[in-house]
Amino acid sequence: MELSRILIHERKPEQLIELREADPNLQSPRAFPIVIGIVEAAAIGRRLEGIDLPRPMTHDLLANTIEGLGATLEAITIIDLIDGAFIAQLSIARPDGHLVHIDARPSDAIALGIATNVPIFAEESVIEQACVMTPPDDDPTDGFKEHDRQ
Amino acid sequence: MELSRILIHERKPEQLIELREADPNLQSPRAFPIVIGIVEAAAIGRRLEGIDLPRPMTHDLLANTIEGLGATLEAITIIDLIDGAFIAQLSIARPDGHLVHIDARPSDAIALGIATNVPIFAEESVIEQACVMTPPDDDPTDGFKEHDRQ
Repeated sequence: MELSRILIHERKPEQLIELREADPNLQSPRAFPIVIGIVEAAAIGRRLEGIDLPRPMTHDLLANTIEGLGATLEAITIIDLIDGAFIAQLSIARPDGHLVHIDARPSDAIALGIATNVPIFAEESVIEQACVMTPPDDDPTDGFKEHDRQ
Repeated sequence: MELSRILIHERKPEQLIELREADPNLQSPRAFPIVIGIVEAAAIGRRLEGIDLPRPMTHDLLANTIEGLGATLEAITIIDLIDGAFIAQLSIARPDGHLVHIDARPSDAIALGIATNVPIFAEESVIEQACVMTPPDDDPTDGFKEHDRQ
């Protein structure tokens, strides 16, 4: 999957990101939105654009901690969708090569991974459920405007 | 040092935490406030009270990542005060016993460490500067009310 859009609604605390199938051979890549908080949306936008602040923000600290421990974030997978809430998993390679999996909110996972282009996957069952949840004629992005990437 | 107070101002985006010297033999322990964001104040309050949410919030994810990598947060040190901004450092023990130091904002460091009672230190020079910055007759906590610990 790829992060296809960040959708900002100026009068709502909830923001949207959209994930879309990234295979260029697909004629109609499937896409689905994930509702995230305004703080996480800001973190994703900032880290996507590589904006450095004088002091590390929380997701920078998380990235620096993983790096400082000699580990590497290898992949993000959206593994489940429970009661409308997506569950993501970080796959992190320890210095000894062992891969550990840690549950996360998709927003935290993507804010962490987006700065280094970590691949994003989604379980087929999640894509199917998410696409049923948001049929094409019900546009959940109504009232949102796209985050303007610099 | 110990986290002595979390001060909430309902009409300000900035919140205050107060660190106080923890040595019980001190007759007049010194204390100084640190301005933090509302999101970090909420995270500190929640993790201090051990409130578990269905999905990990960002500081829970950071704690789970350190644990998943077999590492342990050993200490938090407020190492510097530059232009009114405090710099903290996480001291994390890797599985091989090697200690790594990672710069952080004090709010993130304390939100991370408070759940497991990680000791908080401050460089003497920082305490001195911070106490000069906030003389006793200038109460920076005016208008704030104390976070009600459950």
